Amino acid sequence: MNDRLKDILRIVPDFPTKGIMFYDVSTLFADPECLSEAVERLYRMYKDEGVTKVVGIESRGFVLGAALAVRLGAGLVMARKPGKLPADVVSATYEKEYGTDTIEIHSDAITPDDVVLLHDDILATGGTMLAAKQLVDSFHPRKVMVNFLIELHCEGLHGRDVFPEGTDLRALLDLG
Amino acid sequence: MNDRLKDILRIVPDFPTKGIMFYDVSTLFADPECLSEAVERLYRMYKDEGVTKVVGIESRGFVLGAALAVRLGAGLVMARKPGKLPADVVSATYEKEYGTDTIEIHSDAITPDDVVLLHDDILATGGTMLAAKQLVDSFHPRKVMVNFLIELHCEGLHGRDVFPEGTDLRALLDLG
Repeated sequence: MNDRLKDILRIVPDFPTKGIMFYDVSTLFADPECLSEAVERLYRMYKDEGVTKVVGIESRGFVLGAALAVRLGAGLVMARKPGKLPADVVSATYEKEYGTDTIEIHSDAITPDDVVLLHDDILATGGTMLAAKQLVDSFHPRKVMVNFLIELHCEGLHGRDVFPEGTDLRALLDLG
Repeated sequence: MNDRLKDILRIVPDFPTKGIMFYDVSTLFADPECLSEAVERLYRMYKDEGVTKVVGIESRGFVLGAALAVRLGAGLVMARKPGKLPADVVSATYEKEYGTDTIEIHSDAITPDDVVLLHDDILATGGTMLAAKQLVDSFHPRKVMVNFLIELHCEGLHGRDVFPEGTDLRALLDLG
């Protein structure tokens, strides 16, 4: 079956480094009908879950994360790179292919009453999202779910496998 | 008149540097009712303008930019820092207090048929938005408008004055 949300993605070879096939979601975001359709399909996926906070991962995760938050009647929490959030934060450092990276959210952004949906555009290795999920878990909210626009299966990627068994992880589009 | 969108903002002193009073919009984004209200009030501001593309400025501008794009039935174009966009870009370099900065958008993101609304969270000096507007102007779209969630007037800021006379520049909240 054709899916226009897949068809509109642009594949850019050798970005950001040689040998990587980059799935460019900007073409989907920029198309009015595809953007609306993506939000609507994500909304239908989560409308009965009682989501109170969507956590968007900096920075492409802010796009559908924010639109979905509004559609669900939830708030949007930004998970950001170090030094970007002005108030007290909690942070998690995680391994990357070369060195480490850190992600932060505000200490008061999530409460135990929240039902949290984490969102990013693409699941590749899953490292950033796993760190963000561990941050969110530390607030002990009622429920934590993980969402991606795209789950990549190409080039030996098994990003899903880094998450603990039982993680509620869903993607709108499977690719690769 | 009280405005809960103003009341919910968090003022963080000395961020990112000493002497700066930082208006933290994350508290507004994270509140379901305030987030929805902000989008709805921005929607009412632009619903009759025929907007086809909202250009969000990285990265807080992606939040309301994307939600507003969906509400208006428009697409969302990301204006990003150098090296983040994978395909061909146009870029503009502009002066900052110390050194220069550059902003980019994809070369195929805007066409002459578009009606473009640029969005960012806060108008302070206006430098980034002016550069982004000049980029958008270079595509000669049918109309270009500039929007901020907040226009700051404190500490001698006159960000509005850097834009050419006749620029359609509107902010939802005036502060300072």
